[in-house]
Amino acid sequence: MPPDNTPPPAANQNDQLIRELIECGRDFHRRGWSLGTSSNYSVVIDRDPLTLLMTGSGFDKGRLQPDQFVMVDENAQLLGAAFPRPSAEALLHTVLAQHGAGAVLHTHSVVATVLSEHFLKDGGLRIAGYEMLKGLSGITTHESEAWIEIYPNTQDIAALATVIGARLREPASPLRHGFLMAGHGLYTWGENIAAARRQIEVLEFLFEVVTQKRLLFGSF
Amino acid sequence: MPPDNTPPPAANQNDQLIRELIECGRDFHRRGWSLGTSSNYSVVIDRDPLTLLMTGSGFDKGRLQPDQFVMVDENAQLLGAAFPRPSAEALLHTVLAQHGAGAVLHTHSVVATVLSEHFLKDGGLRIAGYEMLKGLSGITTHESEAWIEIYPNTQDIAALATVIGARLREPASPLRHGFLMAGHGLYTWGENIAAARRQIEVLEFLFEVVTQKRLLFGSF
Amino acid sequence: MPPDNTPPPAANQNDQLIRELIECGRDFHRRGWSLGTSSNYSVVIDRDPLTLLMTGSGFDKGRLQPDQFVMVDENAQLLGAAFPRPSAEALLHTVLAQHGAGAVLHTHSVVATVLSEHFLKDGGLRIAGYEMLKGLSGITTHESEAWIEIYPNTQDIAALATVIGARLREPASPLRHGFLMAGHGLYTWGENIAAARRQIEVLEFLFEVVTQKRLLFGSF
Amino acid sequence: MPPDNTPPPAANQNDQLIRELIECGRDFHRRGWSLGTSSNYSVVIDRDPLTLLMTGSGFDKGRLQPDQFVMVDENAQLLGAAFPRPSAEALLHTVLAQHGAGAVLHTHSVVATVLSEHFLKDGGLRIAGYEMLKGLSGITTHESEAWIEIYPNTQDIAALATVIGARLREPASPLRHGFLMAGHGLYTWGENIAAARRQIEVLEFLFEVVTQKRLLFGSF
Repeated sequence: MPPDNTPPPAANQNDQLIRELIECGRDFHRRGWSLGTSSNYSVVIDRDPLTLLMTGSGFDKGRLQPDQFVMVDENAQLLGAAFPRPSAEALLHTVLAQHGAGAVLHTHSVVATVLSEHFLKDGGLRIAGYEMLKGLSGITTHESEAWIEIYPNTQDIAALATVIGARLREPASPLRHGFLMAGHGLYTWGENIAAARRQIEVLEFLFEVVTQKRLLFGSF
Repeated sequence: MPPDNTPPPAANQNDQLIRELIECGRDFHRRGWSLGTSSNYSVVIDRDPLTLLMTGSGFDKGRLQPDQFVMVDENAQLLGAAFPRPSAEALLHTVLAQHGAGAVLHTHSVVATVLSEHFLKDGGLRIAGYEMLKGLSGITTHESEAWIEIYPNTQDIAALATVIGARLREPASPLRHGFLMAGHGLYTWGENIAAARRQIEVLEFLFEVVTQKRLLFGSF
Repeated sequence: MPPDNTPPPAANQNDQLIRELIECGRDFHRRGWSLGTSSNYSVVIDRDPLTLLMTGSGFDKGRLQPDQFVMVDENAQLLGAAFPRPSAEALLHTVLAQHGAGAVLHTHSVVATVLSEHFLKDGGLRIAGYEMLKGLSGITTHESEAWIEIYPNTQDIAALATVIGARLREPASPLRHGFLMAGHGLYTWGENIAAARRQIEVLEFLFEVVTQKRLLFGSF
Repeated sequence: MPPDNTPPPAANQNDQLIRELIECGRDFHRRGWSLGTSSNYSVVIDRDPLTLLMTGSGFDKGRLQPDQFVMVDENAQLLGAAFPRPSAEALLHTVLAQHGAGAVLHTHSVVATVLSEHFLKDGGLRIAGYEMLKGLSGITTHESEAWIEIYPNTQDIAALATVIGARLREPASPLRHGFLMAGHGLYTWGENIAAARRQIEVLEFLFEVVTQKRLLFGSF
């Protein structure tokens, strides 16, 4: 009688999460939100110790392969094989995961790039009055606006991660929904991949709406 | 001889209708008309008593699963299993079904969102002179315009459903084609799913046309 | 020995042409050039007597089925089964086929609709200076412009077909490339389906180019 | 015992490269970057003597077939079968390959067409300040801009190839990233097909960004 060689459940779970992130990449690449080698995606696979599965650096997000993912610890240090490298932006994923995110998605759309460059001077972009706002996690039906913070683009990801961590912990008005890096793109998150993907879709939709409104009527 | 265990015809019919609505969701999501968890779709499966099959609340419309549909009665009350919940907007579907619609599709496109916000002050959007208007149900070749009514967005769906019902029954100039909720999106309907889908495509095309005309030439 | 029941070659050829037109419809629908029940497509299957295979009236072009095609004679009269009806615009297909077209494709894009409405007063749209012009049938490398004629939209297709026939026969400057119906869409043709499809792609690309140039720089 | 009839490795390698270029064509055609019979793609299959596999002239890039590719030598002369012809622009591919490119991709997008026509007077388009610039081959994190040269469109491809060769060899400031032909489209290259494809995606994204910025805010 053959030995029980069922793969361990954790491995199966990771395979499923990888499949979900591959599918995110395929869809975001098709929409033009993850062109070139831009974007990175992660999901928490363990809380104790904190462990993230995330896209390696420099791969085509439209055709991700299972061996193009890496595991990192809470300091964004690689666990296991030395290749491929984690993304330079891995620290932004881990700080979000430390503050509760179950999955983090980062995309580069045309409208997010242009709006984030323009509104950096204001520190953020206010979006008000649209039904689609209710699709954002934690928005109640009595709220009618979202404030999407914008940070200067930087090579010093560690410093930015510290700022983001502090904003997530701020009791009075913590960072919510997602944030933009100027001329760069969007970071958002959710309790799981599906929730984070919903956030991306809602925010990108809203960015398109404010863009189209400005083009048609001259104001945001 | 085995007993006849053919599934009852009604179940097969529902499976087919669910497949058609899943396909609607896949296409509308791809086009950006049903992002996030926006939109809801329904089809009448019985007239006596009135019974609708419709999308449950909060699901990704690009990847609907058969178990994400619910059955509701004429008051938008759930029939059968308590989970998942019907959409908050189910009453708009049932009032349209009561007045003859065989299928109701509700989508959230960028252009419908922006145009409906802008033209709310006029109570509607007049679209005239385009060949595509003939694709609207009930438009004859001698008609050359459509008036798409716009209602303020509201949380009080029951009140809006009452208004819509009265407009559908108005003898002189009943509500036709579809209606917009300001900053929200489009409701339209047809005798069946294919007819409602055709209405969505025609109306979204026309919204794109008036948008493009304004961008190019400064007027609607 | 079984009788030879190989289907006749003509039937197989028609099946192949139908598959090609179904594929055209799927791609054009995806691009938004054949939404609702707009558009119609045809291909010549016999020259003596002239016989066209064409899309029946009122079908979803994104999901055409083989039984949604009809055969018509040189007067656009139906050959064979009475259902489904040929398109009301079948006479435009037959007049083009009589003057040499092997396939005719008619689409309704947003930009063709808006440009044709605007430029009707000039009788056409001149497009000059783009490399893509060389993709038009019969354009030589020394030509650098195309003149796309625009006709008023009409319900009297027979009258328009007579005008188009006369323009195709005009010795000095015959109608070339395709033509627009104002607020309606594009007719183009080629020696076969692939050539006509190439014409559609080239012309729609050029319409997008002049639109984008006007949006960016204020002039056509 | 049957003789070893394993196909030679080179043939297998070519099959794989053809599959990759077919996939490029499918994606670029879908995005509207290779409509009609525009565009051509090549990959180096031998360095000694220099041999390129490239798309033949006049084929639909959305549905390339393996027999629609040709092999050319360093002078863009056809190797092997006389049909199909190599593209008229083959000399641009060979000059780029002679200077190190492993794959060359040429596309015709709407925005590249319009921007290249407008900025020809400046000799190029400067793009600065965007994170996506880091996706360009050879851009370091300290660089924040790219200069994309623009050349007049020409029928004298041999003369242009000479100019491009000289620019690639210029020691002080060699041609980098890619170049535009005015009113025509983009040439770019990389060490292999994946790298060249990444360049196309990055450059087209950046062209969309500067276009959208101009539309929204009136300046480039």
